[in-house]
Amino acid sequence: MKKVGVAILGLGVVGGGTYKILKEHADFYRETQSVDIEVESVLELDRARALALGVPAEKIASNIAEIVLDPDVNIVVECIGGVAAAKDYVLDALNAGKTVVTSNKELFAKFWHELERAARRHNAGLFFEASCVGGVPIIRTLLDGLQSNEVSSLVGIINGTTNYILTEMTEKGVSYAEALQTAIGLGYAEADPTADVEGYDAAYKLSILSSLAFHTKVPYTKVFREGITGVSEADIRDGSQLGYVLKLLAVGKKTPAGIEVRVHPAFLEKSHPLASVGGSFNAVFVRGDSVGDVMLYGRGAGELPTGSAIVSDIIYAATHAELHYSTFKNTAAPDKDVKFVTDFASGYYLRMTVADTPGVLAKISAVLARAGISIDKLSQRVSGDRATLVIVTHATHELAVRNAVSKLGASGLAEVNSVLRVIL
Amino acid sequence: MKKVGVAILGLGVVGGGTYKILKEHADFYRETQSVDIEVESVLELDRARALALGVPAEKIASNIAEIVLDPDVNIVVECIGGVAAAKDYVLDALNAGKTVVTSNKELFAKFWHELERAARRHNAGLFFEASCVGGVPIIRTLLDGLQSNEVSSLVGIINGTTNYILTEMTEKGVSYAEALQTAIGLGYAEADPTADVEGYDAAYKLSILSSLAFHTKVPYTKVFREGITGVSEADIRDGSQLGYVLKLLAVGKKTPAGIEVRVHPAFLEKSHPLASVGGSFNAVFVRGDSVGDVMLYGRGAGELPTGSAIVSDIIYAATHAELHYSTFKNTAAPDKDVKFVTDFASGYYLRMTVADTPGVLAKISAVLARAGISIDKLSQRVSGDRATLVIVTHATHELAVRNAVSKLGASGLAEVNSVLRVIL
Repeated sequence: MKKVGVAILGLGVVGGGTYKILKEHADFYRETQSVDIEVESVLELDRARALALGVPAEKIASNIAEIVLDPDVNIVVECIGGVAAAKDYVLDALNAGKTVVTSNKELFAKFWHELERAARRHNAGLFFEASCVGGVPIIRTLLDGLQSNEVSSLVGIINGTTNYILTEMTEKGVSYAEALQTAIGLGYAEADPTADVEGYDAAYKLSILSSLAFHTKVPYTKVFREGITGVSEADIRDGSQLGYVLKLLAVGKKTPAGIEVRVHPAFLEKSHPLASVGGSFNAVFVRGDSVGDVMLYGRGAGELPTGSAIVSDIIYAATHAELHYSTFKNTAAPDKDVKFVTDFASGYYLRMTVADTPGVLAKISAVLARAGISIDKLSQRVSGDRATLVIVTHATHELAVRNAVSKLGASGLAEVNSVLRVIL
Repeated sequence: MKKVGVAILGLGVVGGGTYKILKEHADFYRETQSVDIEVESVLELDRARALALGVPAEKIASNIAEIVLDPDVNIVVECIGGVAAAKDYVLDALNAGKTVVTSNKELFAKFWHELERAARRHNAGLFFEASCVGGVPIIRTLLDGLQSNEVSSLVGIINGTTNYILTEMTEKGVSYAEALQTAIGLGYAEADPTADVEGYDAAYKLSILSSLAFHTKVPYTKVFREGITGVSEADIRDGSQLGYVLKLLAVGKKTPAGIEVRVHPAFLEKSHPLASVGGSFNAVFVRGDSVGDVMLYGRGAGELPTGSAIVSDIIYAATHAELHYSTFKNTAAPDKDVKFVTDFASGYYLRMTVADTPGVLAKISAVLARAGISIDKLSQRVSGDRATLVIVTHATHELAVRNAVSKLGASGLAEVNSVLRVIL
């Protein structure tokens, strides 16, 4: 039976989950996968944590060198996170010819080409299923299941923290601040939630998934990014009355005009399959030219779901002869000829405060019409001498909406309180 | 660049879709997969159909021998269907060392072990993604994405014809016969719809998926099977009032008592993610011990979705060095020690006609209670001197319900019109 030695760097949530899964399933993998996977070594500064997980003291390495020099280690699993030590360690492992499995979306989004170059040079595998959407095998699906398709778009809920917060706000009518506190209390959000709530985490993942889907490197810096910190209960409530649910969406499209990648809150019709993806669940819709729409749904985070993806990569690496980095074109660096679309098309939701006087609506409509924006839905509620106006537009362009909003503000006709995109 | 020669047996819906995809994407696969896939030969008795698809006359083979003897053919794609010629041709191809890709669930469910033995003996690959759930890469996901998990259950809507019929009945309130005619008219059902509506097609697929999920061969003859021909509008309407949607479900479970496999109509809560899978769409829920619940959703049939799965297998075979049959234990024949659960547990929906006289309900409740069946929901409507009683039970066992139903009938207390299972 094939024997595979694994080293795990970092025994936090994901590394700890990986260790548990490997220990508890060792017999199962021998029986069902004909592979004997042994954790040979761990790198964890907090020795007590490693010992508490049941790691024998002699398997706790003192430094990365011990691991990369260990001939019994075939696969190095990186669960440290961040881009400082993690990058050095991953490069050390690849340069030593070890196959690397990582869950680190930031590292991968920022240094993919560098890691891939090292992997190819040293004939080492480089696997990253766990970097995107936790236990949901979206990367394997893009690489090995839908590779027969030209993918034209992917739309996903790919950050569990923000989906939990928006679900709380929607279901309980609480504010963003309250929902965030609940999420922190339950461990769904970190004390500093910036990476999640500002959409960085989703942008890293979208960069990775779009690169695979569209067969060209999509730098994360090209992702239009807007977080959820400005989302109000009023928007969620007003949207709900119009039949919408608000989600932080990651959207990737490939059109003749170029590649369009964006992460922002967006309203979906309540009947859309993504609308019912609640709490910390994630889902990704992929549209291929032959297969049509395919959706994958599951837990996007957590020690065991993410550990499931890491161990899946370990088994794949151990049981497939070929080395696996990524299958898009062999240009490690981004292709300079690829065009990116920034003035994307969308429906828009505009909430504004206006004076409750005759003719205001006509004037606002005229401003929008001059910008080429046509109105799909409209609702108004009066409070004293002011009125709240909610407008949903037909498909229009981002820049047209921004221009119209600034004109409305400058004219004194309306104070625009919220601008949110609507998936049509 | 690696060159791969393909022969397609049968240019019907699926074979024709496969041909189209391969022709239209030849450059795309060269660019993105570094593989040059050429259709070297087709076997199609209807020459006019082959020519209409654009197959050059010299590539239309006269018989299977031409194909298996052709050194330029590496992969044989079987899209004939049925088990007569298809089985012989597939064995001929495997015995000649050709890798086989098939969409034939009946062939695979009935003769998997024989095909696998031939493939192993001749070092040929054997791929069957297209046999289950069309374009949805559920087999690749079980083999390569969730192989890190012990799977405890899978629940799916895996037959598009019956899902289309039940969706029509639910949304339009039409009868089974009417919905079936619409489905036949649209090409969603065959003129003889038996294989679909009686659940054979779903049972074949469940046999294949359960075998992969549970790492032991699950013969299709072990699948409890009940079709949708007896489903009435009244059941769908009464169930809807109780908050349920009726679907033809395939359920596979692995418990300490054994493996449980069944295909039957069943009510789902309207909030269940499978409840909103409508029309000809399919979806499969898989529960793994590490990943939790994962769902895959997409088109379960059609020339291009199923062709997408076939071409995905072709590319996988062409780009992966190892041969791929299935990764469950190397016993080609079913394991005699595996136990199967027949008296499964479920909620039940019972619709019955009773006399509208005092005390009837108490007597019926007593019969059910003596059988150990407790009532969850109950609704009654009176029409003349008769009443229609709808009961939904808490979890109970199939045999207990059957006994109670026969006792109710024998006692003259109630005429039981419908017994349907409810997913709890």
